[in-house]
Amino acid sequence: MVSRSQPTRARSPEAKRAREAAILDAAARLATVNGIRAVTLTDIAAEVGLHKSAMLRYFETREEIFLRLAAAGWVEWSREVRERLAALAPGAGGGDGGDSAHAANGADPEPGPRAAAGLLAETLVARPLFCDLLAHTPMTLEHNVSLDSVRSFKVIAIAEVVAVGEALRRVVALTPAQAGDVVATATAMAGALWQMAAPGTALRRLYESDPDLAHAVVDVAPRLTGILSALLRGYGADGAGRPADQVE
Amino acid sequence: MVSRSQPTRARSPEAKRAREAAILDAAARLATVNGIRAVTLTDIAAEVGLHKSAMLRYFETREEIFLRLAAAGWVEWSREVRERLAALAPGAGGGDGGDSAHAANGADPEPGPRAAAGLLAETLVARPLFCDLLAHTPMTLEHNVSLDSVRSFKVIAIAEVVAVGEALRRVVALTPAQAGDVVATATAMAGALWQMAAPGTALRRLYESDPDLAHAVVDVAPRLTGILSALLRGYGADGAGRPADQVE
Repeated sequence: MVSRSQPTRARSPEAKRAREAAILDAAARLATVNGIRAVTLTDIAAEVGLHKSAMLRYFETREEIFLRLAAAGWVEWSREVRERLAALAPGAGGGDGGDSAHAANGADPEPGPRAAAGLLAETLVARPLFCDLLAHTPMTLEHNVSLDSVRSFKVIAIAEVVAVGEALRRVVALTPAQAGDVVATATAMAGALWQMAAPGTALRRLYESDPDLAHAVVDVAPRLTGILSALLRGYGADGAGRPADQVE
Repeated sequence: MVSRSQPTRARSPEAKRAREAAILDAAARLATVNGIRAVTLTDIAAEVGLHKSAMLRYFETREEIFLRLAAAGWVEWSREVRERLAALAPGAGGGDGGDSAHAANGADPEPGPRAAAGLLAETLVARPLFCDLLAHTPMTLEHNVSLDSVRSFKVIAIAEVVAVGEALRRVVALTPAQAGDVVATATAMAGALWQMAAPGTALRRLYESDPDLAHAVVDVAPRLTGILSALLRGYGADGAGRPADQVE
């Protein structure tokens, strides 16, 4: 009611949250189409139908908006990857992830590491905006935002790394530190490979058109799957011969 | 002689190269102290004693300068890592990297993969400016530069990835594609981990001061060594049972 006198301002907490969600949705739409790099605060304001100065009541910078999207991306990716990992775990009936002692043997190819690697790569590649956010987060997003925003983002991202790591450890024999490094490698390499491969960029066109570079065009999903599969099997080989209770 | 009438312009090819080298050295010095992100074209001009407009005769943008430094960084890192890998290779007398068939067995820990992983990580961590350049290259440097500059950089970087990959394959049983992925992972993760860990940044101080984040402070060298060691051993395990002539 109060807001009627100032129609552009969302006064109630619910209205404020709805406005924030509309801004985040608009930013996600624009970034999905054009890439994060190209999206300005003015673009987002225009997309959501607000003046730029009104936007600043909700988010201080474009980086703060993309950091919030990155946090949401971590939560959403983590939920799907954990559900799908749970279906691979022993006793889930969905597959033969193998018990830890067996997976740690490393003597012959185990389906657990390969399936987990494929699942990590596939769920990341299916989320091009999240890959773009992963590539931008360390380089840009942590610099034009308040330390409070960075802290909120980091606490969420670290919690999801731990949660995905725990789900991985039910499928492949890993220490908690190894599981965290697998998740860090998966997400960092997804961002890096996606940056090299993003279709429609001048860089991609250069690669495709130049005989010296055409062979370097990156096909993200199989490459990331290969790297993560080897990483997981390597950790399994590291654990060979250790008593199962030390693989903690 | 001709240049006397215009003392700020380097006329001869030699003088032009010397001026370019002075600009690159100045940029490297400033970036080593302050980080690439903080260094502007004006800063570099001041450090080398040129007016900014005179700088533009040699380099169009700060990104072009850093892309040239990145190319030089690839060449320099590649040379050292290949020399040190050669000392690990069978017959070099310096170690027991193992022949390919043995390294591919994967049944018990081989010194080749661990030594190669440690060497890759150690040589990268010893080059903080190169790590900073590696983190910035895909995100920033390929955007404010001409496609010709990007092409020159890419041709150099890809050649060094191939060269380091070939040196790796004399120490660890890898296909050429696997060797390339090891080098890509080593350099991308060195850039990513270095960004997370760069001392003196606001982010690092936040991590160190916050009880919820302190455990996430990254110690780059051991973490990168662990990831690369597992990756190399995993590829070795992948190759188990293949005839040696198929591991090409």
